Order: sequence, then structure tokens, then C-alpha cells
Amino acid sequence: MNFINIEFFGYLAAFLTTVAFLPQLIKTLKTKKAEDVSLITLIMFITGVGSWIIYGYKISSTPILIANIITFILNLLILILKIYYSKNTR
Amino acid sequence: MNFINIEFFGYLAAFLTTVAFLPQLIKTLKTKKAEDVSLITLIMFITGVGSWIIYGYKISSTPILIANIITFILNLLILILKIYYSKNTR
Repeated sequence: MNFINIEFFGYLAAFLTTVAFLPQLIKTLKTKKAEDVSLITLIMFITGVGSWIIYGYKISSTPILIANIITFILNLLILILKIYYSKNTR
Repeated sequence: MNFINIEFFGYLAAFLTTVAFLPQLIKTLKTKKAEDVSLITLIMFITGVGSWIIYGYKISSTPILIANIITFILNLLILILKIYYSKNTR
């Protein structure tokens, strides 16, 4: 009865930790501010996600690769918007 | 000359994506608000990180396990603080 296999959790995790940053991106675009979002967190997280991409590639884990590439792009967009809005509301 | 091995990137990724949420936790504690942090993002991310824990356990990846357990705890604290501060500043 092992129909929920290993890959299922990988893809569920990949889907959730990827799609999770879309509401943050939409919220930031709507409110035109991300003051409460930590800049250091964003920079460290993006660097860390970049390292997961290398790790996922090296251990040949497709869920890790897919999830982290999209997470990387979404968080980079949030970071760019945060900096842009903080400069335009000074 | 292959002294930068696979596990190095796993542990670097684990370290960065874990420690990354500490500045967010400290910022939230200091400013006593996390209004700009998306609630949906936090809930989806915590659920996703929980799935990574199951996946990491099943593929026996220590970096994935360690990183995601700490990330899970830190984000749960951020979520609790966000809800607490939003209720106490109404």
C-alpha cells in the first residue's frame, strides 16, 4: 500500500515552497511597500536558495532543482520591489 | 582537485536558508509588527517546509533535514508573532 512514494513529498514540497512566495509578491505589488520584510533575510535566503540549486543539481534531485529555481526568481523580484518602493516613498 | 564536494553545497544551503529567517524574527520582535509579511506566504511556506522534512527523511539527506527543521521553527515563530502583534495593535 505504498502508493504515496518519496517523489510525492518532494514535488509537494517543491510546489508549496515555490508557490508560497507568490502571495508575498502580489501583496508587495498591491501595497507598494515591503518595509516589514527583512532585507538581510531576503539577501541570505536568495544566496541560500542558489546553493540549493547547486546541491539539487549535484545530487540529481529534480524537485529540489525546480522548486529552488522558481523560489530564487520570485524572491529576487520581491527584493527588487522592496528596494524600489523604499526609494520611491522616502 | 575536487575538494569542494556535494555535501558542502548542501550544508551551505542548509546554513543560509536556515539562518536567513533569524533577521526577520529579530526585525519583527524589534518593530513589533509584520504587517507587510504575507500571511498566506507564511502558512504555505511552513506547510511546504514540513513536506521537505518528510522528503529529506525519506531520501536520507541530512542537510535537507537539519535546514528544514530549523526553518520550520523560525517561520512558525514569525507567524505567531505576526498574528500576536496584529491583534495587539488593532
